[in-house]
Amino acid sequence: MIDFALLIVIAICIVALGLAAILARNLLSQDEGTPKMREVSDAIRVGAEAFIKRQYSTIAMLTIVFAVVIFAVYYLTGQGALALSTAAAFIVGAACSAVAGVVAMWIAVRTNIRTASAAQTSDGKALDFSFRGGAISGLIITSMSLLGVSLTYIALGADPIHTPFVIIGFAFGASFVALFAQLGGGIYTKAADVGADIVGKVEAGIPEDDVRNPATIADLVGDNVGDCAGRGADLFESTAAENIGAMILGVALFPIFGVNGILFPIIMCSLGLLASMIGILSVKGVDGADPMDAMNRGYYITALISAFFLAGGVYYLLGATPGWMYFVLAGFVGIALSVAFLRVTLYYTDHHYRPVQDIANASETGAGTNIIMGFSVGLETTFVPAILIGVSLLLSYWCGTMTGVPQGGLYGTAVATIGMLMVCAYVLTMDTFGPIADNAGGIVEMSGAPDEVRHRMDKLDAAGNTTKALTKGYAIGSASLAVFLLFNAYMADIAKLTGKAFDIVNLANINVFVGALIGAMLVFLFASLAIRAVSKTAQYVIEEVRVQFRDPAIMAGTKKPDYARVIDITTQGALKNMVLPGALVILFPIVIGVTMKYEALAGFLMVATITGILLALILNNSGGAWDNAKKYIETGVHGGKKSEAHKAAVIGDTVGDPFKDTAGPSLHVLIKLLATLTLVLAPLFI
Amino acid sequence: MIDFALLIVIAICIVALGLAAILARNLLSQDEGTPKMREVSDAIRVGAEAFIKRQYSTIAMLTIVFAVVIFAVYYLTGQGALALSTAAAFIVGAACSAVAGVVAMWIAVRTNIRTASAAQTSDGKALDFSFRGGAISGLIITSMSLLGVSLTYIALGADPIHTPFVIIGFAFGASFVALFAQLGGGIYTKAADVGADIVGKVEAGIPEDDVRNPATIADLVGDNVGDCAGRGADLFESTAAENIGAMILGVALFPIFGVNGILFPIIMCSLGLLASMIGILSVKGVDGADPMDAMNRGYYITALISAFFLAGGVYYLLGATPGWMYFVLAGFVGIALSVAFLRVTLYYTDHHYRPVQDIANASETGAGTNIIMGFSVGLETTFVPAILIGVSLLLSYWCGTMTGVPQGGLYGTAVATIGMLMVCAYVLTMDTFGPIADNAGGIVEMSGAPDEVRHRMDKLDAAGNTTKALTKGYAIGSASLAVFLLFNAYMADIAKLTGKAFDIVNLANINVFVGALIGAMLVFLFASLAIRAVSKTAQYVIEEVRVQFRDPAIMAGTKKPDYARVIDITTQGALKNMVLPGALVILFPIVIGVTMKYEALAGFLMVATITGILLALILNNSGGAWDNAKKYIETGVHGGKKSEAHKAAVIGDTVGDPFKDTAGPSLHVLIKLLATLTLVLAPLFI
Repeated sequence: MIDFALLIVIAICIVALGLAAILARNLLSQDEGTPKMREVSDAIRVGAEAFIKRQYSTIAMLTIVFAVVIFAVYYLTGQGALALSTAAAFIVGAACSAVAGVVAMWIAVRTNIRTASAAQTSDGKALDFSFRGGAISGLIITSMSLLGVSLTYIALGADPIHTPFVIIGFAFGASFVALFAQLGGGIYTKAADVGADIVGKVEAGIPEDDVRNPATIADLVGDNVGDCAGRGADLFESTAAENIGAMILGVALFPIFGVNGILFPIIMCSLGLLASMIGILSVKGVDGADPMDAMNRGYYITALISAFFLAGGVYYLLGATPGWMYFVLAGFVGIALSVAFLRVTLYYTDHHYRPVQDIANASETGAGTNIIMGFSVGLETTFVPAILIGVSLLLSYWCGTMTGVPQGGLYGTAVATIGMLMVCAYVLTMDTFGPIADNAGGIVEMSGAPDEVRHRMDKLDAAGNTTKALTKGYAIGSASLAVFLLFNAYMADIAKLTGKAFDIVNLANINVFVGALIGAMLVFLFASLAIRAVSKTAQYVIEEVRVQFRDPAIMAGTKKPDYARVIDITTQGALKNMVLPGALVILFPIVIGVTMKYEALAGFLMVATITGILLALILNNSGGAWDNAKKYIETGVHGGKKSEAHKAAVIGDTVGDPFKDTAGPSLHVLIKLLATLTLVLAPLFI
Repeated sequence: MIDFALLIVIAICIVALGLAAILARNLLSQDEGTPKMREVSDAIRVGAEAFIKRQYSTIAMLTIVFAVVIFAVYYLTGQGALALSTAAAFIVGAACSAVAGVVAMWIAVRTNIRTASAAQTSDGKALDFSFRGGAISGLIITSMSLLGVSLTYIALGADPIHTPFVIIGFAFGASFVALFAQLGGGIYTKAADVGADIVGKVEAGIPEDDVRNPATIADLVGDNVGDCAGRGADLFESTAAENIGAMILGVALFPIFGVNGILFPIIMCSLGLLASMIGILSVKGVDGADPMDAMNRGYYITALISAFFLAGGVYYLLGATPGWMYFVLAGFVGIALSVAFLRVTLYYTDHHYRPVQDIANASETGAGTNIIMGFSVGLETTFVPAILIGVSLLLSYWCGTMTGVPQGGLYGTAVATIGMLMVCAYVLTMDTFGPIADNAGGIVEMSGAPDEVRHRMDKLDAAGNTTKALTKGYAIGSASLAVFLLFNAYMADIAKLTGKAFDIVNLANINVFVGALIGAMLVFLFASLAIRAVSKTAQYVIEEVRVQFRDPAIMAGTKKPDYARVIDITTQGALKNMVLPGALVILFPIVIGVTMKYEALAGFLMVATITGILLALILNNSGGAWDNAKKYIETGVHGGKKSEAHKAAVIGDTVGDPFKDTAGPSLHVLIKLLATLTLVLAPLFI
């Protein structure tokens, strides 16, 4: 019998999808701007759709191969009964993630032109359009994740004790797609960006988004496939993996809470989706106001309503323990952490604060000092977040212990994670708003719109940069809080398979220590390969653009450059170069696990996760800070545009590009991929 | 009764000091070159001695304060009997390190002028002088370390069961001095270098080592205080800490090997010192030959003789177990690892191989791509070393297990570490050769010597760059192999204090996990502050040089710039800015240990160590690769000097400077400092 609570989850998801449909219908009926705007927008749309099509074809093939591997692993290790269901869950997870990503992008590339058109008359309207375009993504991605988990749970028998261990296949499918979506998209976006900048801005001396530059359209396509589809897949996976991890922990509490403890995560996330809908609808653009004000207000509304829902949800579902109030507190820790992470990210990447100003100052003595200072800031940004994560983990664990429930501490960290995840749909909305605004800005620029329209879009574009940085902070923060529960899900899984307790991962054991060392190394190696992939792909772009620039008609602006060719070259390069880093992080843990067994693999997993979290912070925040130091100088300080300081800051920005948009976000995915991979392939490691 | 073996150690050390004295007397009797050379050399000598005097005064004060802290910790935790001896050992360790560093530097700043003078007629002779100058340092530092440990052991009662736990105070004293010596020296050398380059090369467009640049002398002083005194203190500490750590492990084997197992480490190291003396004396400069050939031959001779001594030493001292042959194999693993690490470092930092060539290629499209590629190479350089360390640890552990001795596995890793340490004096010789050659090159340049003399010195200088990179590889390799035994020494110490077995550090325990997270973060934060300190200090230098450049007489070359003022400013800046990072890494583990107790601190220590090893590799190797990519372009490829590619490569080199000469080497020290600190303050954490 299907639990009544599951019906609530499904109902809320359907409402969310309905809201997304209404918003989409409304948006698509809006004006599509001037013919020149449409021309640019069409080129972006065609390019993005072509990339996505090819990328997901590649991913689909890889998914089928890996599904066979999963089936074989289960079949050959005597777990035949689970083989088909785990492999099927894997494919469903991968498919749901792909569908969510494709639909979200479909909307985004249609919203940019309407935002650009709205900017001709009103910046409030432009904010409304781009924000709602983002909302459609946020709602679809989150509800697809929740629906997928719920329906897979039902399809696999809805047995509260066994099913959670099978639906991890779903989470791994989502991780698998996210890895390649983020890597491929991240490589694409930055290769096009770096290539366009180096030949256009540096070598030929023409402005950004100049129509004569054949790489500009590829650059704008990149914003969609990297930021939009990539981060969408990332947070789709987060919700899936963390919900399922928490459900597995719930199994241990079955004697106390019954099925409530197992379904708690997805029910709360669906309530969070409801809260996000209210938050989204509360945002209303006002002409002349700072767009961040409206979006921040919406965020606080979402967080506040989520907190109420959380308290109510804990009372109804986990009220069986007299100490339930402590679970509420644990959830509040999670919500508070999400707010704290946004504030800290803002501090490190906004030009109102010391770090970005230090980098801008250092630009006066050249690119060398700009880079040194930026890297130093990046390393520094691990400090407060690590303390915040540590304190949140300890506090939510302590809360859980105070409930008096056995294993309550662990469940406390799960409740905190769920609390943080509740605002996910709203955060995704803010995130997708970024590339839409960025694209609309590009369209306005390339279509030669009047200055006042450009100014309106510049303001939105700047807000988009801020929200993109904030979302990365949120993504890494929620991943950090979740990892401890994912480790424990892995250990519960191993214990179930071996029939022996597994609760010690002894770093003083030389195998575990070596596993940990290799795990930390893998993170650095992966980042190296991801950054290198951008370099390599950018090289193809640079060569092609140089060839086209040799045509005097293109430079004179009398002949249209061949945008499609650059898009094609970037697509091929990105897909080719994503394979090595992707394959590496899938094969490495398998090799370690098979040769050194499950305890060493746990050490590998945990220390890789710690290193991954910190390196992602370094790469994301240094990249964001370099970017904003450049923008800060462009406001006129330190000599403004065209000054020596600005040239130095442009170099810093170029260095930061693959850090913050390729390697950093791919590390978010890596962390969760390692957790779901080890969970799914656990039978291999015993 | 003093063991006969200890007398051998002391005798070999006295022989080594005697050889150093003979070499020094011979060297000091050599020609001191032209008056112009002497003028430059005198300025360097005075500057270096002034810095060292002020630096060690600061360190001495800090040492006394900390000695009081140690005394108080032991006294107040009911370990009063050990309070005085541990604090005294700490002071003696600090003093020995300081004396060794000061004497080595005293020789180095007197060797540079004699090398410069020799280069007027013969490059073979110039190599002989600079190499022997390095040998004096190597012999003094190594024998002071061994003598210090032996005599402290005797002075504290030579009780094989208890004394090893007390003389860790000596190792901590050495670590303490090394931290500040390396940090202060590293900040000094790079602040002067970056400052000189930015105002001189970049802003004023005058060549490196130009007499008109007031920061040149400070730059040359920096080579002595950073590379020479800094790395000397680093390896002094390595020998001390690793010997004592291995002695503590020997205590557990006392029933089988008696006192032999405890004295084994220092006896083997003294035999290694003997082997190094033979290796040193085998090096003979030949006019026109590649200086690396002679030095490499000497290195292989040292390694080979060490291997023989090792086999003999194991047979005599550990022959009580029928499986002693396996300990010999474990030792060979260590010697092999030292060779492997040198080869790998060479691969990553020499322009004959792909990594440096990739960076040089990337320079063609500007500083941005140069930095991206260099950073990617740096991240990549963790791969092979981590695998090598992992395999060596597992292999030597396995060898130890095969001996059939209980706890033999652990002792196997200790024997491997000792094997690696045996060649220490020779490696230190090659290392100190570097700054001497560099300084001699500067003197030749600034004294306006003829071109042929410059060419002779350029060759030596290039070899010095290689040996400096290799030594860093060796230093981090030996530290990596040693950490596992140091952890176990900590755990043995805690077990001794609590009277309970302590052999599990459970990462699945949330306290341990959070400790591990904070430990990894500390490493990044420390690197950030170390790099920032260079930036800040360089800023003072830049301002002063700019002021002096405003004087037209200085720029015209008719008035001598005020070198002393820059030296003074750099000294003050370096000493001021070393305090924050230094204090941080001492206070952080104490806070974690006191609040979260010994198991969480063990997690902190282990994961900080893993992260520290990998980050040090990244920083050292990327810095080395950037430096050599610039030098490679200067040989004429990619347009050679003055090309755009060269300008880009100069920026990369500037970025790499604080990486490879400040933060990276300071991390070597940090790793061992954390280990000795936790050992000495163990009573606080229970």
